[in-house]
Amino acid sequence: MPRPALTSRDDLTDALIGVGVEHGRDAVSIRTVARAAGVSIGTVQYHFPTKDDLLLAAYERAIDQVSLRARAVAEQDPAPATYIRSLLRELLPLDDRREAELRVALAFSARSVYSPRLTELYTEGYRALVDAVAGALEQAVERGEAAPGVEPRRDATEAVAVADGLAWHRLCAPAVLTAAAAEAVLDAHLARLLPPR
Amino acid sequence: MPRPALTSRDDLTDALIGVGVEHGRDAVSIRTVARAAGVSIGTVQYHFPTKDDLLLAAYERAIDQVSLRARAVAEQDPAPATYIRSLLRELLPLDDRREAELRVALAFSARSVYSPRLTELYTEGYRALVDAVAGALEQAVERGEAAPGVEPRRDATEAVAVADGLAWHRLCAPAVLTAAAAEAVLDAHLARLLPPR
Repeated sequence: MPRPALTSRDDLTDALIGVGVEHGRDAVSIRTVARAAGVSIGTVQYHFPTKDDLLLAAYERAIDQVSLRARAVAEQDPAPATYIRSLLRELLPLDDRREAELRVALAFSARSVYSPRLTELYTEGYRALVDAVAGALEQAVERGEAAPGVEPRRDATEAVAVADGLAWHRLCAPAVLTAAAAEAVLDAHLARLLPPR
Repeated sequence: MPRPALTSRDDLTDALIGVGVEHGRDAVSIRTVARAAGVSIGTVQYHFPTKDDLLLAAYERAIDQVSLRARAVAEQDPAPATYIRSLLRELLPLDDRREAELRVALAFSARSVYSPRLTELYTEGYRALVDAVAGALEQAVERGEAAPGVEPRRDATEAVAVADGLAWHRLCAPAVLTAAAAEAVLDAHLARLLPPR
């Protein structure tokens, strides 16, 4: 019996993310993804003609998942401080799911420098994240919940940099930066922008 | 005539960094480095038996250069604020040299997740940088030059995350984050820790 479910683009994306997260980007190829999904090389090539297509699919999936969770938080109509904290904690590798997404993001971005298509997708995700944080900071300023001197665009850029920088250091230097320290630094940063009542 | 100068480990490191910075980590191999340096594959293999050895050499070079410049700044016995600002601006891709070093660091760290040797070297560099910033912040606290509430270790971790996060976003999303904005955000961050007189 053929297994049509395993040949869908979504299932192949699962397989390729599995290979990439476990063994690194160098291990991701048309051949290794075909083997992991139990399909022919031709099937993988049909959906993903090049290695960049494989990386794009993995990164699109990571962005989609972060966006889905951001929307779920937004639907609860949280205070700006709660919303920003939820968004930025999604970037830290605090559990297996987020660590897997971060491995994909780091590998993708390192490669994106050499590919206009990857740069475009990375830029789109980065812009959406900064816009979301800046929008919530503007709302906080209007509601009188922000610290004096907060500039939404500048401080959103900074807060996203803090979160991604901590994520990078936690993933790559875990012996120096503990998960608890990364969380504490992010929380202290946000508490200065949006002082708790 | 043989060209013995080109077969030194240092010259091969120059050649491999050139290949990596221009074409990306995927393009770095024993073969491409041999071609770029105009030597035999055996010569490259003698100095660098594996691809991880090539990456290690490139990253060691980047760290050495950053350390050299950090020491040159320290020898001028600057105020803590000046020292920290000089150190952290070295991480931002504000000119070709620093952009090349950042490309190496990003590619290296993405790969380091899968290699204990690379993790060790990345961790050592990260620890040295946080220690240097924390030491300067302690000095600023003693001299009464720090903002109230500064905690040197926590705030050094945060400042290094801001700088590396901005570097990452500037390199990978240059259409959204301009060089001027990245500099302004880092300066504003440091001004909060160490208010200008």
